[in-house]
Amino acid sequence: MKASRFFISTLKEAPAEATLASHKLMLRAGLIKANASGLYTWMPMGLRVLRKVENIVREEMNRAGAVELLMPVVQPAELWQESGRWEFYGKELLRLKDRHDRDFCMGPTCEEVITDIVRKEITSYKQLPKNFYHIQTKFRDEVRPRFGVMRAREFVMKDAYSFHTDYESLVKDGYQPMYDAYCRVFNRLGLNYRPVAADTGSIGGTGSHEFQVLAESGEDVIAYSDESDFAANVELAPTLPLEGDRAAATETLTKVNTPNAKTIADLVNFLNIPAEKTLKSIVVEGEEEGELVLLLLRGDHEFNDIKAEKLAGVKSPLTMASPEAIRRTFGANGGSLGPVGFKGRVYADYAVEKAADWVIGANEDDHHYTGFNFGRDAAEPVFVDLRNVVEGDPSPDGKGRLKLARGIEVGHVFQLRDKYSQAMNATVLDNNGKSQVMEMGCYGIGITRIVAAAIEQNNDERGIIWTQAMAPFAVVIVPMNYKKSAAVKEAADKIYAELSEQGIDVLLDDRDERAGVLLNDSELLGIPHRIVIGDRALKEGNVEYADRRENQAQTVALSEIVGKINAVLKA
Amino acid sequence: MKASRFFISTLKEAPAEATLASHKLMLRAGLIKANASGLYTWMPMGLRVLRKVENIVREEMNRAGAVELLMPVVQPAELWQESGRWEFYGKELLRLKDRHDRDFCMGPTCEEVITDIVRKEITSYKQLPKNFYHIQTKFRDEVRPRFGVMRAREFVMKDAYSFHTDYESLVKDGYQPMYDAYCRVFNRLGLNYRPVAADTGSIGGTGSHEFQVLAESGEDVIAYSDESDFAANVELAPTLPLEGDRAAATETLTKVNTPNAKTIADLVNFLNIPAEKTLKSIVVEGEEEGELVLLLLRGDHEFNDIKAEKLAGVKSPLTMASPEAIRRTFGANGGSLGPVGFKGRVYADYAVEKAADWVIGANEDDHHYTGFNFGRDAAEPVFVDLRNVVEGDPSPDGKGRLKLARGIEVGHVFQLRDKYSQAMNATVLDNNGKSQVMEMGCYGIGITRIVAAAIEQNNDERGIIWTQAMAPFAVVIVPMNYKKSAAVKEAADKIYAELSEQGIDVLLDDRDERAGVLLNDSELLGIPHRIVIGDRALKEGNVEYADRRENQAQTVALSEIVGKINAVLKA
Repeated sequence: MKASRFFISTLKEAPAEATLASHKLMLRAGLIKANASGLYTWMPMGLRVLRKVENIVREEMNRAGAVELLMPVVQPAELWQESGRWEFYGKELLRLKDRHDRDFCMGPTCEEVITDIVRKEITSYKQLPKNFYHIQTKFRDEVRPRFGVMRAREFVMKDAYSFHTDYESLVKDGYQPMYDAYCRVFNRLGLNYRPVAADTGSIGGTGSHEFQVLAESGEDVIAYSDESDFAANVELAPTLPLEGDRAAATETLTKVNTPNAKTIADLVNFLNIPAEKTLKSIVVEGEEEGELVLLLLRGDHEFNDIKAEKLAGVKSPLTMASPEAIRRTFGANGGSLGPVGFKGRVYADYAVEKAADWVIGANEDDHHYTGFNFGRDAAEPVFVDLRNVVEGDPSPDGKGRLKLARGIEVGHVFQLRDKYSQAMNATVLDNNGKSQVMEMGCYGIGITRIVAAAIEQNNDERGIIWTQAMAPFAVVIVPMNYKKSAAVKEAADKIYAELSEQGIDVLLDDRDERAGVLLNDSELLGIPHRIVIGDRALKEGNVEYADRRENQAQTVALSEIVGKINAVLKA
Repeated sequence: MKASRFFISTLKEAPAEATLASHKLMLRAGLIKANASGLYTWMPMGLRVLRKVENIVREEMNRAGAVELLMPVVQPAELWQESGRWEFYGKELLRLKDRHDRDFCMGPTCEEVITDIVRKEITSYKQLPKNFYHIQTKFRDEVRPRFGVMRAREFVMKDAYSFHTDYESLVKDGYQPMYDAYCRVFNRLGLNYRPVAADTGSIGGTGSHEFQVLAESGEDVIAYSDESDFAANVELAPTLPLEGDRAAATETLTKVNTPNAKTIADLVNFLNIPAEKTLKSIVVEGEEEGELVLLLLRGDHEFNDIKAEKLAGVKSPLTMASPEAIRRTFGANGGSLGPVGFKGRVYADYAVEKAADWVIGANEDDHHYTGFNFGRDAAEPVFVDLRNVVEGDPSPDGKGRLKLARGIEVGHVFQLRDKYSQAMNATVLDNNGKSQVMEMGCYGIGITRIVAAAIEQNNDERGIIWTQAMAPFAVVIVPMNYKKSAAVKEAADKIYAELSEQGIDVLLDDRDERAGVLLNDSELLGIPHRIVIGDRALKEGNVEYADRRENQAQTVALSEIVGKINAVLKA
């Protein structure tokens, strides 16, 4: 492609509303253009990247045996009413009425539409398993669209839906092949990512995985093992009971006056002790009317409400006890609470099981105990998993220790089971002629979001750094004085023709711009390989080659540059 | 592709709501599936066809120098308010509100969005000409969606928009290259089509052309020359004044009683004369308040209101005179009107200028004149073009005679000029540094509609007949007893492997169905080339080859079938 036949439009500065690196760079490099809040046009340069992602996803879906179709953007309300999502889905579902006042929505996903098709098309177990996917525009009416295409309202998603006679087939023919295909997609794209368990159902989370591209700006925090492939959303990663015996008590229970120490930080300051020595008390409502449950965890740990909610005897959804109820039961206000004298159910986090001599609230305002020990000063609680994991925790699979990283969710595989097929009565006849509800899986990849995530992970002060698989062009030829120097033009055209003939995506930047502009743009655009052609080097029979990931350019003989490019592209 | 890895779903009978051949066949062949009125899913088999069309369009757009981008489906109302279309566009524009109660629409076309982008991105004449296109889902809220994807609400369109400094460039760099590209697209698709002037501005219609696929079921009627490439929508094709002298009058003006003869048909029956001998009187309002204008044309010709509205002294928009005004002015009711004694402005169609002895209303209820002659019995009218052309009329370009055909509009090229750029203030600085409004062209192709139009043009009682360019698969292999006969399976797999390796789109129909079902489906699906493999022929070392367009199958040696396929694909 010659720049004069294409459209390059770069900016020195990103508009002020862009805060995220990828958003800034996508606007500066002219990959996207905002049309309205959360609505973007993919400009020619950006669309090339988008299509490369799309094609890799399509190839791997096809390789995994999924069959492509194309469902509509606008979906009838009736199907959503049947599944129950019409009522349940919040304002992110953009609802609309047609000219006859009938209800429709812009599809954020397509479970209803595909289930409706499949229940009409597939009647026998012999037709299963089947996995249908499409790559289509989706819409989510985000309350606050931001970060460019990272959280846009209109976006392109690949969504696949698999149908099975039984759960075994869902796992073997649907979920696992899709999981593997997703790994191939993200490997081919050259992204640093992790499949992350996104379900607490079982350790390792076979029911649902998110695919997270690791990047500091990510909205999600992931815990992963430094020795195995265990990875989970930090809120879902389990902690394990500690091993060994509890340390012996060395202190006596002593009530101390702690005026105005309402938080762990206050207490740590006032008593000049580490937070690890303190116990935090959290009081929630029990299942029985009026019952309170006390939850204890280390002062420096983060309470995990998802885990707490699942405990026996705890009210679901998790409900914090009211100040009045706390006062009535404990005889003190929050900030000075503890288990001493409390008759109700007490859970304590695994992390506190083996230590002695805690500092804890005395159930008397402005007082705490030091030297508190379980068993001696209060009954042994039930030790459970109550907190978020932290760096250094043992990995739940027993291999290595956990590290934390931030991630951007770009894919999700999910075992829907019969959520939709049951509601919409999608059944097949099994091999005994008996009607049975199909098992379903769904599998999404955010095509547009991947582009932003890749930039978050790969950029520097000069601009974007594309991996070869996603780059809009593999090679850019930057001629100095293309319009004026016949020698430069001849060399540039020759290299361009040879590389093009070899099927290499090459951009010849024949724009009539200053050398500095062309060079800066080539770096901003992040094209992996650059050939600079100037009169001075040409006289010596040379051109200049640079790898976008390196700071140093190399001198290469004109006669060898095409060979060099072939070599680096294969590297 | 093996059928077992794909999805084939055919029907013996089309649902009753389908009346058009293409709609029936698309449903029967499982190309599409209805989700709601005017909303369709493109099933795997249909999507393959759609993508082939899309790719050919994309290749020809790129070859013509148009640059691809991707604009959003949902568009902000502000831009439509700026162009004026928010008010002007009827209920086909699906308007919607987001969660913040802001107005948006589903884009039926993208003039506003692209003009907004271009006015921000392009500031100098040096950046022009430029032509941007995208292939994107569109929405038109048709009052009565019908004929399947032919007139669906959601559809896929390729729309391109070119921008220029002046009109000359619009024609040379935008309109003509797009016109040529469209011809290449429809030629490559193998369709019988005509570019049709869709503008009365000038004969040959340089301002706008429709591309019509000829098919009996088409909604449009096209007039085209049997000797030149003149073609126009029948309502827009001009008629020419007749040559030669007027025939001499042979009859005297005679008033006859014609009780209850209110129409030309009544009159023809009652007097037993041909309709060509009668004159039809149409009375419309003049520009002056209360003035009536009389329009005369041959009884067997169709009145053309587009032409009539442009006549001097005729009120625009064209308004039929009220019965009361007619009665007051002519002294008779409609059905018995004529020019004798009428003092107002009279226009007569060119076709009646040279003939004599007409039958015409006598301005007295239930009475007509026979033997009426212009000049003698009433003043000479002004002779103009007032009617639709008919078969046999001379071509307006002077070459050959007109034929009529029905067509389906699948493309449209249009010189927008400054309609949008003026309203939206899209300007560039010219080479004198002066701001000037850009000239624009727009160019649409109905990607989804092409699929239906191609089927309308190419089908028989057995099903679809695809051209090679659009066929979902070029070749289908139909093995008899694939699951049971090892020899059949071996031969089928071998041919399949060889053809696939050569990059040929081949379908191996390995479904466990009866031979009749497989054969019927291959014909219904319209795959151009079929290889049938059965045990009996195999024993002789043969297979059977059939061209979908022919009724006769040929016996071909197994060893020669791959060569045979290569030969027919190149033919």
